[in-house]
Amino acid sequence: MSPAAADPVDFDPGAYDAVGLITKKRDGGTFSEAEVGWLIAGYTRGAVAEEQMAALNMAVFFRGLSRDELVVWTEAMIASGERLDFSSLSRPTADKHSTGGVGDKITLPLAPLVAACGVAVPQLSGRGLGHTGGTLDKLESVPGWRASLSNTDMLRQLEEVGAVICAAGSGLAPADRKLYALRDVTGTVESIPLIASSIMSKKIAEGTGALVLDVKVGTGAFMKSQDAAEELARTMVELGGAAGVTTVALLTEMSTPLGLTAGNALEVRESLEVLAGGGPPDVVELTLALAREMLAAAGVTDVDPAEALAGGRAMDTWRAMIRAQGGAPDAALPTARETDVIRAESDGVLQSLDALAVGLAAWRLGAGRARKEDPVQAGAGVELHAKPGDRVTTGQPLLTLHTDTPERFARAHAAVQGAFEVGPQPFQPGPLILDRIG
Amino acid sequence: MSPAAADPVDFDPGAYDAVGLITKKRDGGTFSEAEVGWLIAGYTRGAVAEEQMAALNMAVFFRGLSRDELVVWTEAMIASGERLDFSSLSRPTADKHSTGGVGDKITLPLAPLVAACGVAVPQLSGRGLGHTGGTLDKLESVPGWRASLSNTDMLRQLEEVGAVICAAGSGLAPADRKLYALRDVTGTVESIPLIASSIMSKKIAEGTGALVLDVKVGTGAFMKSQDAAEELARTMVELGGAAGVTTVALLTEMSTPLGLTAGNALEVRESLEVLAGGGPPDVVELTLALAREMLAAAGVTDVDPAEALAGGRAMDTWRAMIRAQGGAPDAALPTARETDVIRAESDGVLQSLDALAVGLAAWRLGAGRARKEDPVQAGAGVELHAKPGDRVTTGQPLLTLHTDTPERFARAHAAVQGAFEVGPQPFQPGPLILDRIG
Repeated sequence: MSPAAADPVDFDPGAYDAVGLITKKRDGGTFSEAEVGWLIAGYTRGAVAEEQMAALNMAVFFRGLSRDELVVWTEAMIASGERLDFSSLSRPTADKHSTGGVGDKITLPLAPLVAACGVAVPQLSGRGLGHTGGTLDKLESVPGWRASLSNTDMLRQLEEVGAVICAAGSGLAPADRKLYALRDVTGTVESIPLIASSIMSKKIAEGTGALVLDVKVGTGAFMKSQDAAEELARTMVELGGAAGVTTVALLTEMSTPLGLTAGNALEVRESLEVLAGGGPPDVVELTLALAREMLAAAGVTDVDPAEALAGGRAMDTWRAMIRAQGGAPDAALPTARETDVIRAESDGVLQSLDALAVGLAAWRLGAGRARKEDPVQAGAGVELHAKPGDRVTTGQPLLTLHTDTPERFARAHAAVQGAFEVGPQPFQPGPLILDRIG
Repeated sequence: MSPAAADPVDFDPGAYDAVGLITKKRDGGTFSEAEVGWLIAGYTRGAVAEEQMAALNMAVFFRGLSRDELVVWTEAMIASGERLDFSSLSRPTADKHSTGGVGDKITLPLAPLVAACGVAVPQLSGRGLGHTGGTLDKLESVPGWRASLSNTDMLRQLEEVGAVICAAGSGLAPADRKLYALRDVTGTVESIPLIASSIMSKKIAEGTGALVLDVKVGTGAFMKSQDAAEELARTMVELGGAAGVTTVALLTEMSTPLGLTAGNALEVRESLEVLAGGGPPDVVELTLALAREMLAAAGVTDVDPAEALAGGRAMDTWRAMIRAQGGAPDAALPTARETDVIRAESDGVLQSLDALAVGLAAWRLGAGRARKEDPVQAGAGVELHAKPGDRVTTGQPLLTLHTDTPERFARAHAAVQGAFEVGPQPFQPGPLILDRIG
């Protein structure tokens, strides 16, 4: 891999006029390739001011971007920084991106599983903000494990172990980092073209050969409706295709948490159960479905990931991956100092268990952060003892809350107040995988 | 007059969240009075950032503001600064605002005319930017005249002379000054609620008892269509009424320049002709129409402004007004060093003479400025020798261009290229006053 810096972009500050371009989009016009390139390069360099980009983002919220505009917008964000290149590796690469959900620890078993099946997984991840956890926060609960790797170490680990989960360097799509921070404070996060280009610019710059997207739908997800999720998925699949990255998306259910845990060390523990051949059925189902998509997208069709799980090869790769980044795979995982149990108040069947409420409770218990610079508690989170469809009896534990700081229990209780319902009738949960776009 | 500072506004930075409010407007919501007050006060104080206000302005461009939102938005801009009070004067007050046109020197004869009829005119004006001239720039071509007055001097002059035309102090609606500068660089000038609240916040803060608006329509105006001009006029009349200021609007034609001159000293010269009882018929017609509206709005119905013009009383007031601000009403006006004549190339009737083209030519000759800090030439501008409907013969002068810097002639010629048309058929210009809203 040569972490090739982007070609130096010739930028002429006087080539266009920011006000004219904002007005053009505001009035429903379509940008040329050169105009989009000028806007993104100008914004990255400070020639287009924050307030100008804020107004433009809001105009894009209302007017959208055409497919061609979006392709060059994404290319311009990629060109703002370095672009990794894994073509020197002896095996194909595939990566996965999830739009974020509660209890979504799938990356943890998935990356070593796919690597064990012969496809390298370069997973550049972020930390959590808000009610959905971050993959790096989860892995940092493993004693000794470190998230930062140089590009050289990353390449070596990909060749030797086959899987890397590490922090995305600041050199990838710096325009996106700046733009995302701006959207976050100016009410323009919820724009499908801006979301799609943000995700895809980082994933394409990362250099993966194939990409599988897990687009979540439901109360605990960013996309609350299946229509919006489909549109986002379709947009990202098109952007991947335009950049020569084989891209497939699964739409998956996020009205109730994935698995039985939400929290950093709690989710690592559950991931180890899956790698050991057990674990909650929904986590196993989604891990295998995504693994099959990644393998197929990378051109590997003769390996069954279920066998790699059952035979322990995925666990072996996990241990090698953790060790390669300084972690101790056999060390005890941290646990929270205090727990509190919420019990069923009637007999019946659990009809629902709201993902957002559980995510907020885990966050308030210390598993997540409100601001980028906040620390997280490794042991904090929520453990579920029943899922929708399960029969429960009065007094049976439904949730266990974990935290090092028991003064947080009250706010976590408030978060899950009314978040579950026990009723007399049977309940059959719907499918986990709602659609496939590719 | 006590230039009463606005009541100190209790501002609680944590009362609302800027992102939440931007999102609310973006999604079509309606702000409460408290939310609008918080936004404007927060922006004035820097608690709402420039990029946040830019995004909000763009959301307002798309979603609009309800009548109630707009009333409190305007009130909040007024409350950001001082509010003048003329209730101690012995006569009623009335002011006029024009949305800006080419050759629009009407304020110059109008203010002394209305004062001569018994209504005080506190005209706080601005300088020109772009192709329409500024009233202060025009008056500054009168030797010795100064635009800056203290509030005390302004009040004394209003009482003694009856008319003041001076620079608006920075204490009036400072939120508007900040907001306008932001809109100018972020493509959000063209929003009717934002335009209406910008104009009306300054005029209401200025303390006038009655207000007559001259809303221009046509190529040389900001509003190109009569529908948009009507909507703007209606919105401003409503805002005036809500603030207790009797407000009337005339919609007037701006497809061809007003009068026969565009430029600073050139327009003063033409205004003096009107004050002397002569002058171009369209300038006289509009001056008298606006004067009648101002007198009626101020409750004076028994004075005929045409008599005040004919009898020389308006000219007397002009001379007193100029002298009170240091000017020499009898000094020769500056003239440009060079002139260049554009002649008719055929016999016929002048069918059209485009206002925007003449405005651009005057601007390029040095009468206007491209940036706030640019100087203007007192003598520069365009003189018209025919108006649409007039018969012309080959070789007859149509336009005389005036400038101190003859290298500017070429760009002025380019501006008026194709801006007029001579044809065989007779042409009858339409009415100058298109509508009245009040």
